[in-house]
Amino acid sequence: MRGIHHLGLAVTDLDEAIETYERLFGARLEHREPLVDQGVEAASLLVGDGRVELVTPTGEDTPVGRFLARRGPGMHHVALEAEDLLVTLEELESAGAQLVDRVPRRGLFGLEVAFVHPDSVHGVLTEVVASG
Amino acid sequence: MRGIHHLGLAVTDLDEAIETYERLFGARLEHREPLVDQGVEAASLLVGDGRVELVTPTGEDTPVGRFLARRGPGMHHVALEAEDLLVTLEELESAGAQLVDRVPRRGLFGLEVAFVHPDSVHGVLTEVVASG
Repeated sequence: MRGIHHLGLAVTDLDEAIETYERLFGARLEHREPLVDQGVEAASLLVGDGRVELVTPTGEDTPVGRFLARRGPGMHHVALEAEDLLVTLEELESAGAQLVDRVPRRGLFGLEVAFVHPDSVHGVLTEVVASG
Repeated sequence: MRGIHHLGLAVTDLDEAIETYERLFGARLEHREPLVDQGVEAASLLVGDGRVELVTPTGEDTPVGRFLARRGPGMHHVALEAEDLLVTLEELESAGAQLVDRVPRRGLFGLEVAFVHPDSVHGVLTEVVASG
């Protein structure tokens, strides 16, 4: 893996959370878009050379909506950057990871992404993102 | 802020978690030490140019021990790197952040660190680390 692409945070109010990250940490809004098939509206912010992705659910009956109802706002996933996503998914499966997506889906910025189930990564929902 | 210094994960078995990150993501163990005043044993791993800190509690009646009992293993905190920690803590407080530590404490690698309460950062326990 090349490194941490972004840290994903689930929030109840996207505008308010963006404002908090700008005010406290000098974050700069990089991009904002709805990700319809994931049931979220997402915003990416740059904090120095790091990236935070804020996601808020479009409804209660979505994965992030259920996450918020169960655990409240907070850290939701970490995304690692892979040079070749398909090769990495094969390697992960061979190494015993439980893949949520065997076929990549579209993430923020139109990047190809896939999720690894938290049960195989000590409770951490891990996204793998193809290098842009 | 300069960027994300590390992502902190709470785990129940440090050796097993290190092995998982090495096997799945090609992580390399950078450093390992007990942090007695935080009640954890910690290990930092490099994943490409990113860093993950695995922490396991030294007992049940510690902050991370209680976290694990309440939420199970998973993402615990994010650490942001600051050029000048004391100036940053003053700025954070002026901007409305609720500080857990007004006086820095010693973190991994002997770095000065301070925590911001999750209630002021949308549920995310946020550590600020002085640049090494």
